[in-house]
Amino acid sequence: MERDSRKRAEALLAQMTATEKVGQLNQHLYGFRIYHVEDGKIIFTQELKDEVKKWGGIGTIYGLYRADPWSEKNYETGLAGGLSMQAYNQLQKYVIEHSRLGIPFLLSSECPHGHQALDGYLLPVNLAVGASFDPALYERAGQVCGRQLKQMGVDFALVSALDILRDPRWGRSEECYGEDPYLSAELARAIVTGIQKEGVAVVAKHFCAQGETTGGVNASAARIGERELWEIHLQAAKACCEAGVKGIMAAYNEIDGKFCHANRHLLQDILREQLGFDGVVMADGIAIDQLDIMTGDNIRSAALALKAGVDISLWDEGYTKLEEALKQGFITEKELDQAVLRVLTLKFEQGLMDKPYIDENGNRTASYSENGAVSFPTEAYQESEKLARESVVLLKNENVLPIGRAEKIALIGPNADDIYRQIGDYSPPMDRAGYETLKSGMEKEFGADRVRCYNGHEVGTAVSLAENADIIVLALGGSSSRFKGALFDENGAAKVQGVLEMDCGEGMDTARLQLPGNQNELFTAVCALKKPVISVVIAGRPYAIPEIAQDSDALLYVFYPGPMGGKAIAELLSGKYAPSGRLPVSLPRNCGQLPVYYNHTVSYPAMHYCDMEQGVLYTFGEGMGYSHMEYVDICLKKQQDVWIISGIVKNKGNIDDTAVLQCYRKVLSGELVPRERELVAFSRIKVEKGSQKAFEIAMDADKFRYFNESGAKIYKSKILLMDSGKIIFEE
Amino acid sequence: MERDSRKRAEALLAQMTATEKVGQLNQHLYGFRIYHVEDGKIIFTQELKDEVKKWGGIGTIYGLYRADPWSEKNYETGLAGGLSMQAYNQLQKYVIEHSRLGIPFLLSSECPHGHQALDGYLLPVNLAVGASFDPALYERAGQVCGRQLKQMGVDFALVSALDILRDPRWGRSEECYGEDPYLSAELARAIVTGIQKEGVAVVAKHFCAQGETTGGVNASAARIGERELWEIHLQAAKACCEAGVKGIMAAYNEIDGKFCHANRHLLQDILREQLGFDGVVMADGIAIDQLDIMTGDNIRSAALALKAGVDISLWDEGYTKLEEALKQGFITEKELDQAVLRVLTLKFEQGLMDKPYIDENGNRTASYSENGAVSFPTEAYQESEKLARESVVLLKNENVLPIGRAEKIALIGPNADDIYRQIGDYSPPMDRAGYETLKSGMEKEFGADRVRCYNGHEVGTAVSLAENADIIVLALGGSSSRFKGALFDENGAAKVQGVLEMDCGEGMDTARLQLPGNQNELFTAVCALKKPVISVVIAGRPYAIPEIAQDSDALLYVFYPGPMGGKAIAELLSGKYAPSGRLPVSLPRNCGQLPVYYNHTVSYPAMHYCDMEQGVLYTFGEGMGYSHMEYVDICLKKQQDVWIISGIVKNKGNIDDTAVLQCYRKVLSGELVPRERELVAFSRIKVEKGSQKAFEIAMDADKFRYFNESGAKIYKSKILLMDSGKIIFEE
Repeated sequence: MERDSRKRAEALLAQMTATEKVGQLNQHLYGFRIYHVEDGKIIFTQELKDEVKKWGGIGTIYGLYRADPWSEKNYETGLAGGLSMQAYNQLQKYVIEHSRLGIPFLLSSECPHGHQALDGYLLPVNLAVGASFDPALYERAGQVCGRQLKQMGVDFALVSALDILRDPRWGRSEECYGEDPYLSAELARAIVTGIQKEGVAVVAKHFCAQGETTGGVNASAARIGERELWEIHLQAAKACCEAGVKGIMAAYNEIDGKFCHANRHLLQDILREQLGFDGVVMADGIAIDQLDIMTGDNIRSAALALKAGVDISLWDEGYTKLEEALKQGFITEKELDQAVLRVLTLKFEQGLMDKPYIDENGNRTASYSENGAVSFPTEAYQESEKLARESVVLLKNENVLPIGRAEKIALIGPNADDIYRQIGDYSPPMDRAGYETLKSGMEKEFGADRVRCYNGHEVGTAVSLAENADIIVLALGGSSSRFKGALFDENGAAKVQGVLEMDCGEGMDTARLQLPGNQNELFTAVCALKKPVISVVIAGRPYAIPEIAQDSDALLYVFYPGPMGGKAIAELLSGKYAPSGRLPVSLPRNCGQLPVYYNHTVSYPAMHYCDMEQGVLYTFGEGMGYSHMEYVDICLKKQQDVWIISGIVKNKGNIDDTAVLQCYRKVLSGELVPRERELVAFSRIKVEKGSQKAFEIAMDADKFRYFNESGAKIYKSKILLMDSGKIIFEE
Repeated sequence: MERDSRKRAEALLAQMTATEKVGQLNQHLYGFRIYHVEDGKIIFTQELKDEVKKWGGIGTIYGLYRADPWSEKNYETGLAGGLSMQAYNQLQKYVIEHSRLGIPFLLSSECPHGHQALDGYLLPVNLAVGASFDPALYERAGQVCGRQLKQMGVDFALVSALDILRDPRWGRSEECYGEDPYLSAELARAIVTGIQKEGVAVVAKHFCAQGETTGGVNASAARIGERELWEIHLQAAKACCEAGVKGIMAAYNEIDGKFCHANRHLLQDILREQLGFDGVVMADGIAIDQLDIMTGDNIRSAALALKAGVDISLWDEGYTKLEEALKQGFITEKELDQAVLRVLTLKFEQGLMDKPYIDENGNRTASYSENGAVSFPTEAYQESEKLARESVVLLKNENVLPIGRAEKIALIGPNADDIYRQIGDYSPPMDRAGYETLKSGMEKEFGADRVRCYNGHEVGTAVSLAENADIIVLALGGSSSRFKGALFDENGAAKVQGVLEMDCGEGMDTARLQLPGNQNELFTAVCALKKPVISVVIAGRPYAIPEIAQDSDALLYVFYPGPMGGKAIAELLSGKYAPSGRLPVSLPRNCGQLPVYYNHTVSYPAMHYCDMEQGVLYTFGEGMGYSHMEYVDICLKKQQDVWIISGIVKNKGNIDDTAVLQCYRKVLSGELVPRERELVAFSRIKVEKGSQKAFEIAMDADKFRYFNESGAKIYKSKILLMDSGKIIFEE
């Protein structure tokens, strides 16, 4: 089948002009700008028509369904319900009919944490997924998401899966699974597998090392060497390749002076040869034009990117000039053909060439039809809600949680009742019901009469509400909401300008890592009442909150938990479930301590300063439940090429709880400076109250032989079994 | 001569046993611990005698003259005046007489900013030297220093010359010439040339990239790639090698997972092959033993270091076990011989084999004598004082400087009258007179009756003194003083423990970058008096001082200016001279902005955050004088392989002043991401009041062809001529 697609693609390629070829590679249009909805009808713009005419077709269209303040698409102006299928089919028909060779377009769609479309299926942000330590659940959630994408005709799901969070100042922290390469790799593998099961190609982004940053500034230089690149930043891409990912998006940043989009070593030697990738490489938005600061010239930039290994562009001018690059001898016809062949092969593989339309059941069909609504997945937010529940991290609990049945509860803070402060960046308008904020979740869980809410930060109002309560839940945190006056860069990132509701999300990097606005003041005033205070920090990044950790009676850290987050948190506060999230990233005491990841090397006393207590506030892997777990009969054995750690975990309390067992390698000697420890396996083990469960966790022996792909040897290492930052067993 | 030394060394080597060879390589003793002074007589310890016996001699002895709180040597217990020569000759005699082959020892001595010995000739710290932008003066000062070292029999001057300041949290910031590789390289070249002119071998430290750090923590991981290594961190070493430096000290840190002490690529391929180094490589203190965290074993660590290219150890146990490593086959006899041959060759080259003793005039002699005082350089602190004067950076002046003749001046603050807060880390006791604090300097310059001083930080006392003054000079800043209760690590770095006077210097890394103690409070209280406030920040690192910069009427930033610093500052305050220092490092607004160096790449908006004004407080190269300079007839021309920028600078004011012209390259296109700009030449031009001067600054055309040694090309670049952060000319 694959060989067949390739042959058919080759035959098609042989008939194409240079212009038509270039047309297949440039993803120049902003899909959300090529139509208007008028009286329920879809009208295409002249720009679209000119573009189709210019290239004799279109290779890929980006973001037809994108809906958010940047795209200016919402339930009035965008494609909701049946309109999406209608638009897709009409557009496909137009493109095919205006392409000399009848080639349909591929459709790419943003899917960093679910589909950024009206009624798009949303998940918690990646950082929350990281806290769940649950790839199996995430894979199932991904599959639900993939089903919806497929029904909407999406070929390429653009999924944040490769960035590793090494500096929490970065506004895109939320798009990372955390600071750990292994956890990130397993989750990246899960989402690729889940979505691709439904036949939608994942474009995993961003390749590579974007999370390294310089100073936490977006898309800044990763100045690292090859060891750091391999051990920290390439592992997620490796897992995606093993899972058969069909697309990879190059990253904006440079690595040690070389832009990823111009880095042949990265895109060919490493990606295709060492990692065995066989799909298409897509550019990030206008990233090819950004090469101009290096080349001084658009045409040279395009040539550089193509030669480096970028197949499909995004929005840039550069790739519209590839024919000029060919004429000037900057690229060869063969280089051009190779990229086009990859695109065409994928079109055959995806079935697009034979069945370019979507029928009313969301299946591909050869025959065009104008009407019919797609039926969206009925299970709706089940997986998303489970993920949210598993992602909440309990860091402190001085006998106040779960909240007893008796109390009058004051719910106070800017993150108490605002859905956009709960779902992260790259989210669509949420007019449609079905979500739950913390307020609505708590009212349902505790009864509306017991919960009084103030969704704000004005101190006086907060204190008067709190005075009349028995217990106070403070909903603090950040916001990646683009829905209150954010302005945008030409690549859609938010700008530090205009009315700023946001302090997180793409473009919103922060120097100080403090909770925004007057939240510390609000916290201090409420604490002064000397009532039990439960702080719930809902955020897209680690904040430095030493005072809040110290003075709260309980502390929950919640990375944007998605549409069902409010319900999930409420049911943990009530004790319906026990918290089971673990920190996927370390929390610093102060921005002056950065970097603070746990897996630094041991050659120096990390985070050791004369003006601050050493170490982080909370470290990677921390998080508690409500019960008390005990471990017995733990042993480590080797079976062929696998190390197995087994034992029994007993739940000694009176509530069902979950152990999140983490196996770390600690290298004792080898050819490179060892890291403090390195996660090599993990497992969530739910144990009913008063009960026990046997566990077995397997680890590749390979992990104990090699640091990295370049083969530096380990002579001696040991295994630590840990949960919540505590060592359970070591050998 | 050199060939001759080598031949004689080979002949000697052929007679040596393995034990004797190993003895030549390990610099195991702490020289300041091998003697006591009793009734003016020098008594050697049993440890010394055992060591000499064990190895049949001694290769190199470290720090015989070291005097500071760590060494517990001072004017009572240490070697002052004639005692030093006496100790040297006695020790040399003992070693020669107890060595089967009569081989004398080499003596190494700390010289990070002048000689750390009693009566040692001291210079301003490197960061101050950086601010002077005056390699010619620094070379002359180095020569004075070298003359004293020679007279004391020192063979190896351990000189901080290679570290580049990339993170101001680092306590050793003061040991760097600044953040710029070119400025640092020219100053490194100058000190090597100056000291070596007198026949003393410089051991330039530390090789390499120690200033990169992770989080500003001392000796932490440099996680960088080869481009950053070459362009930023290797340039100073390259300049030292060009100047014929005879020794290089390996750095504690790792680079991308490889310890420098175990990095054959660094110590052989780069240092010897690419940079053409032909001297000895010395280890840093106990650094070879630190390899144990990688190898798990002392003997393997020693073998690894020797094979990587370390010739001489320092304090570690590892190199005392080289014979064991040889027996176990970890190293070959040939590898051992190569290192020993380098040491012996140097002993012949330095004349040590023929004239092992020092005569009363400080010259080498063949005949032993017990008495006689060395005559110290008579010019004393002239060069040191000039360097101090040129290093003071005026950053703000709202018509308060120079101070008029009329005012009553209050001098207030912890850095007003404490010599140890003015001279930096690695300084000897200063009991002997001859230095000037700011207080004594100002009293001499303004008259004691006009200056009232409070050397402290208590707010009430400060305010009452200030109330009675017309103008207030605040002497703020940090301290690298080991003289008030600091405790020490086993390698002599200060520990974050005990009574802490220090907040800077080796081991004193800081997270927050704030002026220590209550200085901000003191500043605010004094400012509230609404009198003119001149802030003089005396420091070993950049601090984040946005409030002080904003509310002071004038701001002088002074990196520890050395023994004559107080006089130098006073004479600038009075207007006897105009300030002419320029910042060798950028000053951040806040620790959350790091890194803040000016020569970042242009691929991203550096220091751009949503919660802070973009950019630094003051940038590299800033600094003003008292006059107004104008530039005319500037032109750029190429003569063969040299670009020359020429013009005329006119001093339009009524005080002699100095332009510090800085030529930057700005790459417009090339094979790597360009940097914002890069310093490629500079020149100090003193112009008398009302006068003018023609200038010509030459730049190698090479600089406009290549980024780095790996040969990445530049296609197009331009030249900027700047002073104090302002562009004077560009083409």
